[in-house]
Amino acid sequence: MNDRTTLRRYPDRGSHDRETIDAIFREALICHVGFTDDEGRPIVIPTIHALVGDTLYLHGSVASRMLRTLREGSDVCINVAIVDGLVMARSHFNHSMNYRSVVVFGTTRLVDDPAEKQVAFEAIAEHVAPGRWDDARQPTEVEDRQTMVVAVSLDEASAKMRTGGPHDDEADHDLDVWAGVVPVKTTFGTPIADPDAIRDVELPGYLREYRRPSS
Amino acid sequence: MNDRTTLRRYPDRGSHDRETIDAIFREALICHVGFTDDEGRPIVIPTIHALVGDTLYLHGSVASRMLRTLREGSDVCINVAIVDGLVMARSHFNHSMNYRSVVVFGTTRLVDDPAEKQVAFEAIAEHVAPGRWDDARQPTEVEDRQTMVVAVSLDEASAKMRTGGPHDDEADHDLDVWAGVVPVKTTFGTPIADPDAIRDVELPGYLREYRRPSS
Repeated sequence: MNDRTTLRRYPDRGSHDRETIDAIFREALICHVGFTDDEGRPIVIPTIHALVGDTLYLHGSVASRMLRTLREGSDVCINVAIVDGLVMARSHFNHSMNYRSVVVFGTTRLVDDPAEKQVAFEAIAEHVAPGRWDDARQPTEVEDRQTMVVAVSLDEASAKMRTGGPHDDEADHDLDVWAGVVPVKTTFGTPIADPDAIRDVELPGYLREYRRPSS
Repeated sequence: MNDRTTLRRYPDRGSHDRETIDAIFREALICHVGFTDDEGRPIVIPTIHALVGDTLYLHGSVASRMLRTLREGSDVCINVAIVDGLVMARSHFNHSMNYRSVVVFGTTRLVDDPAEKQVAFEAIAEHVAPGRWDDARQPTEVEDRQTMVVAVSLDEASAKMRTGGPHDDEADHDLDVWAGVVPVKTTFGTPIADPDAIRDVELPGYLREYRRPSS
């Protein structure tokens, strides 16, 4: 932990608890990665992630701008945010959102060890759908070379969240304004089989009633 | 448009069409803002946004780190990403996600004109729930001073998206692997009234069966 992950405002909303941080990373499908270009200007790109122990893995095509920029030793900031509710207060000023969020500051490490790269590939596949790794066709050597993996340590990570109802000023409680929370959820529809399929394959159990692990 | 928003990989997935860009901003509840700290290191923070014409407004407490850092003339990169589906291919390599995303590169302008600040406040309230602005208590002068608003122009914006089923290699089509898409949606639950309410206020029509405008 350093100054950047010291929780500033609303410290009651913040946490350095690893279980909390891990649960948010597990539930979120994607994260947003911030880095800088050659001229020091910020770039933010959404991407999939996977957590293995204390290491967050990101991957992509060796041709992608993000991966070409994120070489060994790049400073990154990774944010994950899950919106849980729209908090309607009586005053506009006290409107808010319920959310769970993690921010990680770190330095990228290029993963070139084949065994570690394999661990990352598996973790990313299983992050999306546990059970998928063993089911789909494994990467070939060529596909492996076309994919870049970077690792970021969770050393500097913190979670921030808000739950509960609106916090209105005492004087506003008697206003004729509805106050409360509109719950927000990510939901998953019935899987749609590839219309171009040439053989009939049964929908695997791990995709039936698909849902994220909830924290 | 400049080099940064020139669409590189998969140009068929990209668009500079303003209707497409606006629709994604309208539907997304939050965006991720990337900027750099005093030492040039990247920071990414999730926040609410609102679009008015060609201007994107962000707001927050004058005490927040983001708003304290985002002074007049800061370089920012703003990304909005909506995940629409998990694309399960027969090979791990061809797994993907369906999504709609916008990236904006720009320079912040501090909004200190009271009339424009009011426009931004209203746009942000209406972005979350159209109808809310006239219903809730307006900001006081003190609340106005405690809130900072920055504007970013949409001059350098581009959308990127993926739709449809998996694109597998010809040779993989005969594998015994289910392929298709798991649809992903953001849904909204029944609004929960503030348990601390001291008067009974009817749920307003604009929060009944709440949903985002869809693009």
